[in-house]
Amino acid sequence: MSDQTRAYAAQAPDSGLAPWQYEPRAPRPDDVSIEILYCGVCHTDIHFVENDWGMTEYPVVPGHEIVGRVTGVGRDVKNYKEGDLVGVGCLVDSCRECACCEDGLEQYCTGGNVPTYNGKDRYDGSTTYGGYSEHIRVAERFVVRIPEKLDPAAAAPILCAGITTYSPLRYVDVQPGDRVGVVGMGGLGHMGIKFAKAMGAEVTLFTRSEAKVEEARRNGAHNVVISADDEQMAAAAGSLDYILDTVPVEHDLNPYMSCLDVDGAYLLVGQLTPVNPPLDVGQMIFTRRALIGSLIGGLPETQEVLDFCADNDISCDIEMLDIRNINEAYERMKKGDVRYRFVIDMKTLRQA
Amino acid sequence: MSDQTRAYAAQAPDSGLAPWQYEPRAPRPDDVSIEILYCGVCHTDIHFVENDWGMTEYPVVPGHEIVGRVTGVGRDVKNYKEGDLVGVGCLVDSCRECACCEDGLEQYCTGGNVPTYNGKDRYDGSTTYGGYSEHIRVAERFVVRIPEKLDPAAAAPILCAGITTYSPLRYVDVQPGDRVGVVGMGGLGHMGIKFAKAMGAEVTLFTRSEAKVEEARRNGAHNVVISADDEQMAAAAGSLDYILDTVPVEHDLNPYMSCLDVDGAYLLVGQLTPVNPPLDVGQMIFTRRALIGSLIGGLPETQEVLDFCADNDISCDIEMLDIRNINEAYERMKKGDVRYRFVIDMKTLRQA
Repeated sequence: MSDQTRAYAAQAPDSGLAPWQYEPRAPRPDDVSIEILYCGVCHTDIHFVENDWGMTEYPVVPGHEIVGRVTGVGRDVKNYKEGDLVGVGCLVDSCRECACCEDGLEQYCTGGNVPTYNGKDRYDGSTTYGGYSEHIRVAERFVVRIPEKLDPAAAAPILCAGITTYSPLRYVDVQPGDRVGVVGMGGLGHMGIKFAKAMGAEVTLFTRSEAKVEEARRNGAHNVVISADDEQMAAAAGSLDYILDTVPVEHDLNPYMSCLDVDGAYLLVGQLTPVNPPLDVGQMIFTRRALIGSLIGGLPETQEVLDFCADNDISCDIEMLDIRNINEAYERMKKGDVRYRFVIDMKTLRQA
Repeated sequence: MSDQTRAYAAQAPDSGLAPWQYEPRAPRPDDVSIEILYCGVCHTDIHFVENDWGMTEYPVVPGHEIVGRVTGVGRDVKNYKEGDLVGVGCLVDSCRECACCEDGLEQYCTGGNVPTYNGKDRYDGSTTYGGYSEHIRVAERFVVRIPEKLDPAAAAPILCAGITTYSPLRYVDVQPGDRVGVVGMGGLGHMGIKFAKAMGAEVTLFTRSEAKVEEARRNGAHNVVISADDEQMAAAAGSLDYILDTVPVEHDLNPYMSCLDVDGAYLLVGQLTPVNPPLDVGQMIFTRRALIGSLIGGLPETQEVLDFCADNDISCDIEMLDIRNINEAYERMKKGDVRYRFVIDMKTLRQA
């Protein structure tokens, strides 16, 4: 990978300006103009910067965990005014007309939604640029309010890591007393533990690493199963109502699946590649287990999770990052060496 | 495969009697003694007779779609009396104490249920023998009533093929207007079409064979998609709320999965082997689709489906079979050459 493909170094080929130095697009009547204060660093950012999915259009400005201050609003904007603390997550637009959009499930928009970066604006076809930037301009519908009670920097990752884990737990309607397993304790997993606990569940973390046991308990896990330990896995068989699997790379689902009770549901949010080793559907048939995919969350639910965090004193554990160290941060993330999310302090961009 | 392993020819090694000539076990207080009139032939019977799953104990008497007449009851039996027309499905016992048994989900009994054949009696450890037989003796809890309105022979396959397809449709609570796809139109699939239609759904059959289009419509399908036709499959993308996949052998789930709408559920009842080609969970995440396994049904629901069939004039399409032709029937079933279920007329056993 050349430096040119790195987010921080990405140059707009025509102007010599870094894309994050561009002015945002011309304002529209329903636009909210935002000065970005903080932006979380999601593993997806790395995939796009390194073109792992073959769909990156350079230059790319990553970042979809954005917290900022409103600097101006269009004439049709109803809910925000200058000075408000707001957030922008993974989406900046959608068709607004399909059944999903009508239901506030813009993430599943069948008309085609617009990702916060590397997307195409629905009106002028321009590329969308994300949150590693000074400013962003986003339609009101895709802006959420950051509750005052939350630390603005620690709130940023709620816009992706948070909603991604909150949404499936709500979709299956986790209730007090339910037994919820969480696979993996990274940016997503540690939020999943906090949410499940706040919903009243008994939470079990599955992790490969003995070293994470104490930390898992600090995050709220009642039990920890070392997934590399066959005896511990066997003892956990059939013991859970739900499993939230946050592992972002290909892995064997079957050992975790066998830890679900009859009628249990396996919630998959991380692995996008086909299941290999093959999924053992025989065990799913003999126990009526379900495997359910889930993608981030819609705008109403993104507001809901922010309010839920404020009400339940939940925030993401973060490491503040100087954007000049972004490339090093990526390397550390690839090794899982971050607890649990880097958040860029955008002041450092202005100093860069 | 030697003749000895064939169901009809299976000999009890110690007595020289065919197992179906045995007397049933000594009666217990909650037993219902049944003279068998009809028994459906399920593909599972072939798997056991040929020891495809490596778990057959010979001699085996297959058959778990049993309709017969009560010839006597134990002193604790409350709901049946001599002369009643009754049925026995895939199970003849369970632990009766676990949460599943308490919920009437004996098929998922975590204490260990007892299959109608090739199982082990919970009290004396004897092998259970199934419905290709003159008599069977079964605990009242595992006996269901055959509604008078039903043809007794055509009712037999409801005990397995029927309940297996009815139960998942009820589990996801199919409502009038829902769009239900059925993959495969064999013994299970043709019942799935009838049930989904009776529940008010718009039914689409997926079949490889153009030759089945008219028949599918006769069975109640509103639409037929030829699964080998890429254009037809592409046109069906995202169009269904549920898919009931009845194919009993390994196959690619992904093309059917892509026909589900957002939040759709894929109900798998046939394939017990791991999913190969690999399941594309990426498409499930981007649409919040679910894959759910389902196994037969519990006893209360087995009674429910029989009553549902009586109320909705549903029966299985059958070919009556002389048990002396059972081996030929198995060969025809392996080629899919039966519309849609063989049912043994047990009179022919007495003539054999």
